[in-house]
Amino acid sequence: MSPVPQVSTPQSTRSRPQVVIIGSGFGGLEAARGFSRADVDVTLLDKTNHHLFQPLLYQVATAGLSAPAIAAPIRNLFRKQANVTTLLGEADDIDAASHRVLLKDGGALSYDHLIIAAGATHSYFGRDDWARFAPGLKTLGDAFEIRRRILLAFELAERETDPQRQRALLTFVVIGAGPTGVEMAGTMAEIARHTLPGEFRRIDPANASIILLEGGSRVLQSMPEELSQRALEQLEKLGVEVRLNAKVTDINALGLSVAGVSRPDITGVAVYQIASHCIIWAAGVAASRLGFLLALNTQCKTDRAGRVVVEPDLSVPGHPEISVVGDLAAAKSYVAGKEPTAVPGVSPGAKQMGRAAAANILRRLAGEPTQAFRYRDWGNLATIGRHAAVVDLAGPTGPLRFSGYLAWLFWLFAHVYFLIGFRNRLVVLMDWGAAYLSFQRSARVVVGEEEAGSGEPR
Amino acid sequence: MSPVPQVSTPQSTRSRPQVVIIGSGFGGLEAARGFSRADVDVTLLDKTNHHLFQPLLYQVATAGLSAPAIAAPIRNLFRKQANVTTLLGEADDIDAASHRVLLKDGGALSYDHLIIAAGATHSYFGRDDWARFAPGLKTLGDAFEIRRRILLAFELAERETDPQRQRALLTFVVIGAGPTGVEMAGTMAEIARHTLPGEFRRIDPANASIILLEGGSRVLQSMPEELSQRALEQLEKLGVEVRLNAKVTDINALGLSVAGVSRPDITGVAVYQIASHCIIWAAGVAASRLGFLLALNTQCKTDRAGRVVVEPDLSVPGHPEISVVGDLAAAKSYVAGKEPTAVPGVSPGAKQMGRAAAANILRRLAGEPTQAFRYRDWGNLATIGRHAAVVDLAGPTGPLRFSGYLAWLFWLFAHVYFLIGFRNRLVVLMDWGAAYLSFQRSARVVVGEEEAGSGEPR
Repeated sequence: MSPVPQVSTPQSTRSRPQVVIIGSGFGGLEAARGFSRADVDVTLLDKTNHHLFQPLLYQVATAGLSAPAIAAPIRNLFRKQANVTTLLGEADDIDAASHRVLLKDGGALSYDHLIIAAGATHSYFGRDDWARFAPGLKTLGDAFEIRRRILLAFELAERETDPQRQRALLTFVVIGAGPTGVEMAGTMAEIARHTLPGEFRRIDPANASIILLEGGSRVLQSMPEELSQRALEQLEKLGVEVRLNAKVTDINALGLSVAGVSRPDITGVAVYQIASHCIIWAAGVAASRLGFLLALNTQCKTDRAGRVVVEPDLSVPGHPEISVVGDLAAAKSYVAGKEPTAVPGVSPGAKQMGRAAAANILRRLAGEPTQAFRYRDWGNLATIGRHAAVVDLAGPTGPLRFSGYLAWLFWLFAHVYFLIGFRNRLVVLMDWGAAYLSFQRSARVVVGEEEAGSGEPR
Repeated sequence: MSPVPQVSTPQSTRSRPQVVIIGSGFGGLEAARGFSRADVDVTLLDKTNHHLFQPLLYQVATAGLSAPAIAAPIRNLFRKQANVTTLLGEADDIDAASHRVLLKDGGALSYDHLIIAAGATHSYFGRDDWARFAPGLKTLGDAFEIRRRILLAFELAERETDPQRQRALLTFVVIGAGPTGVEMAGTMAEIARHTLPGEFRRIDPANASIILLEGGSRVLQSMPEELSQRALEQLEKLGVEVRLNAKVTDINALGLSVAGVSRPDITGVAVYQIASHCIIWAAGVAASRLGFLLALNTQCKTDRAGRVVVEPDLSVPGHPEISVVGDLAAAKSYVAGKEPTAVPGVSPGAKQMGRAAAANILRRLAGEPTQAFRYRDWGNLATIGRHAAVVDLAGPTGPLRFSGYLAWLFWLFAHVYFLIGFRNRLVVLMDWGAAYLSFQRSARVVVGEEEAGSGEPR
């Protein structure tokens, strides 16, 4: 075997500019692709071995798709881009002074240019103790855990002899009515009403309660108000009980406490309890810890969600060699003659930032000035469940808004189109086709140590 | 909600005979199906929520198939058989005197007739401390763990700077050359030689060593000698280093110690070390612990592997109401005028026993005498890798034996044919078709807490 290159080669021995990219989500992936014809060495670092198509992660959590259908091995995606080296590992800190990324298990990566695309994770607003009772949905591991809890709750309800405990097992609560919360609640209602009935002998899954709690006054707050209203109607039609202006004050092993006004039998604001063994957190998002560490090291600013406030060209103030893209960046879109606008935390935003950051690095290498980032907003879509979605497109003569069946079809084809890899598209289309016709879900598998449960759902 | 039936209803309140089946592998599943038109209540107990098509489990472990492709939710399989109640739970003991199955998390199931189909697990021959260094392959959880270790070993080798440690990371050892060991080793060689090359920049996966250790003098000892020879040749052609008469004397975090003669540079028996971070155990099988407990409770006998020695009609001596089928049974096949022969531990054997046990219970309920079990042996097949398999069929005029490409095609179609569910067949065929054409594998996903590794492969 030939001698092995050091993980951290001293910069002086290198002939080509070294670009390090942290994270292989939408932003990191597009950034790496942006160097496909460039005379640079790219190192793509990720703590997993796969790129995850996050818009469909809720389908894995609800047993509609298998994990490999929405996850592609990163190094396979860059098989033919010879200047990309994929490394499995986690960035522990950034030493901006010496231009090095320190790795969690020791070692370091030297860079001439760094793109940080480390994304976001769920935030429990300081109540991290809630995490074990109400997992969030960001990784495949999260999706497996949520799938396990949903499927086990029905299994344990079938075995439960105490009616009150059985009721709690058949009560599913989703916290937060953003896109993830809405699609989780809608799909869980579909499972309870359409997939499982007929398979149990002692319970009727159709009697399960799916409760969607939202602290604000409407669902899908990033959407125009009329579409929030359409989404609310579609959720209720699917059998989801939506409670608006409901604030979660506590979560524990037995269920949760809610301060709210929307329960019909309570007048005024009151705190009440919901007994539930399957609670899903879709309420808060916080930027990756790397943002905080970067701020410590470079004196850059972060916003309230921990995102790094970047320059118009996506670089870090005072550190033109470092760019931040995707959910970790508090970025603005610049259009000549207009006020800059905030870039929304959606996948097209991350992709466009990744591409722009790579292009700016190439400009800098060519001695050209960098360009301010401009976000092209094609619109916004959210799915709710079978035949139910809302779409808000930026049409040429004004917004184009629609909901229901047509919006659902539009959502479906848009997502299949943007999935990476022909095989994955085929598998997803096939699984969805079969699920549509049969109401079945193809990935109802509980895996892990606690396969048999232990009387308690967790 | 209507009142909930008790888990353990007293026998006297029941109108129909209560049949309990423990385990939903091939034996348990066929047994439950055997009651499809019978006037009995069947309770099917399993510690997982899915029936696993074990002959293809190695494909999940080697990233060729996703888990849902070979696992079907049990209660979905019995959706239309209204007399079957599926329960998730683990049998902890059998109280033969009071006709009850005691459950691990409390509660009990009363039975009039009991079929135990709890199968087998891996055995480390008293060295259970080896389990963490050399996992076996029985459950989906096992398959995920092995997949994780294989994929992570290559990832860590790409990052490793010490040549000796890198060599150890690229050394894969399979212990035991039965059907599982042979197909694991063959497929791992395929991954190293065909799937991964081109994706790494610092190592060449094709240089990986795949070592198959066998304590006996030939591979696939349940096959005729000529087919063992064919299998050995095919393994070596695929790039597997087969070491026969090699006994493992120790396994630890650094690798394993082997006593053997087959290393070319050693004359006579010697103990030598192999440094490896990915070791797979395919050597020993032990019957489920329920066999041991049943022997304690009913004074029945178990054989050396812990299997229950059953009567010709598959019932337990002295307990006609209890039958044991599948890998947990030491059963014989009875043909008039011939010496009884042992039933091999293969899936057709388990299926046939399950069907026979159900039929005998129905005979007993009808007041008829039970029948001795007769195993119909259609032959034996084992796959090795791409274009490589061996087949030993019971032809009308004597055995029909072949190997190589044709045997591989035969194996492939036989397995797709016996897969449960149309959708699963389609998915498996599609994944195999794509893998065949592209040399790619569709499920190369590492999931779990240790996604990023920690410098050490475990």
